[in-house]
Amino acid sequence: MISQEELVVATQGRGTYDLSARVQDVVAASGIKMGMCHVFIRHTSASLMLCENADPSVRLDLETFMSKQVPDGDPMFTHTAEGPDDMPAHVRSILTQSDLNLPVSAGQCALGTWQGIYLWEHRHAPHTRHVVVTVQGE
Amino acid sequence: MISQEELVVATQGRGTYDLSARVQDVVAASGIKMGMCHVFIRHTSASLMLCENADPSVRLDLETFMSKQVPDGDPMFTHTAEGPDDMPAHVRSILTQSDLNLPVSAGQCALGTWQGIYLWEHRHAPHTRHVVVTVQGE
Amino acid sequence: MISQEELVVATQGRGTYDLSARVQDVVAASGIKMGMCHVFIRHTSASLMLCENADPSVRLDLETFMSKQVPDGDPMFTHTAEGPDDMPAHVRSILTQSDLNLPVSAGQCALGTWQGIYLWEHRHAPHTRHVVVTVQGE
Repeated sequence: MISQEELVVATQGRGTYDLSARVQDVVAASGIKMGMCHVFIRHTSASLMLCENADPSVRLDLETFMSKQVPDGDPMFTHTAEGPDDMPAHVRSILTQSDLNLPVSAGQCALGTWQGIYLWEHRHAPHTRHVVVTVQGE
Repeated sequence: MISQEELVVATQGRGTYDLSARVQDVVAASGIKMGMCHVFIRHTSASLMLCENADPSVRLDLETFMSKQVPDGDPMFTHTAEGPDDMPAHVRSILTQSDLNLPVSAGQCALGTWQGIYLWEHRHAPHTRHVVVTVQGE
Repeated sequence: MISQEELVVATQGRGTYDLSARVQDVVAASGIKMGMCHVFIRHTSASLMLCENADPSVRLDLETFMSKQVPDGDPMFTHTAEGPDDMPAHVRSILTQSDLNLPVSAGQCALGTWQGIYLWEHRHAPHTRHVVVTVQGE
């Protein structure tokens, strides 16, 4: 069995957006009990991550870390057509994930207790992001 | 065909742990000859990697690199409830992998000669880590 | 249905190599309309990425960024048997991807408009790289 659905995520600019419930809903609707759930973002300036889901300070600290590692407006970057956060958004995407593959057990993604599925918007302006969820199994 | 098994890994604290043989055993037991093997860690402060498997100095140098990139106790971090290695463990997880997907050919993971599957424990204290292995194919 | 093929990529040394067309050809040849396409590199000193495919300056800036983050010949590295780019190549691989999983829709990888599939060679010398493409679905 295989099932595929596209989620549309309207971001409000740089930050993290919890997709866990929406992804679990796609798995439940598929009727698949054991298999794999694949989450894929069709962009190169936003990315996905599995992150601690209990304390929001974890995601704030991740943002602080990334902002230092890949500063907006760094003069080493030449690809600046869309502004100082253009190239940093591509670098952040490369350093994190464009796709996540999650085991499905007992009809849901077998995440750990503290794992949530997040979209990380790397651009400062709001964007419409497309995420493809594919569930395969039996 | 699909087969799923959970491995329990008792870590002795920060460092790398070779899971290659245990994962290959799950593939062999599944009887699947061609398909995919998925390895998933159900935690956000330990991660997975495919790494050079011949010279242990590679993994020591990776640890040195990460310790410099994401120093324990960095004052930029606010999420410090569990100590100076708490937030760095989350950052290291984000920069590496929570899941690996490996092709299965001729009844085993088709790793390159120099590729091994490692769990990277990022906390200093020993932990019990849960890893879900799913094999799909024919 | 499942289909598997190995691509051989002759690199000319450090840099990025577009594999998009070759991967899409494997998907088309498989006859699979909906499912997953998995791309796997069997090496630990070259990696894969999904990257902006329109402006080559993005990939040049990524190289600039990585060269600063993980400098060749950094004295912190002890694994130097194969030269100053040996250990940096392993670190760059860990920070990027060894495998990509892409949804297949309507008989092709459902990439976003600006997403291309690249092999990133991290060694300065030319290498022969092996990439396994597995397509699963219906």
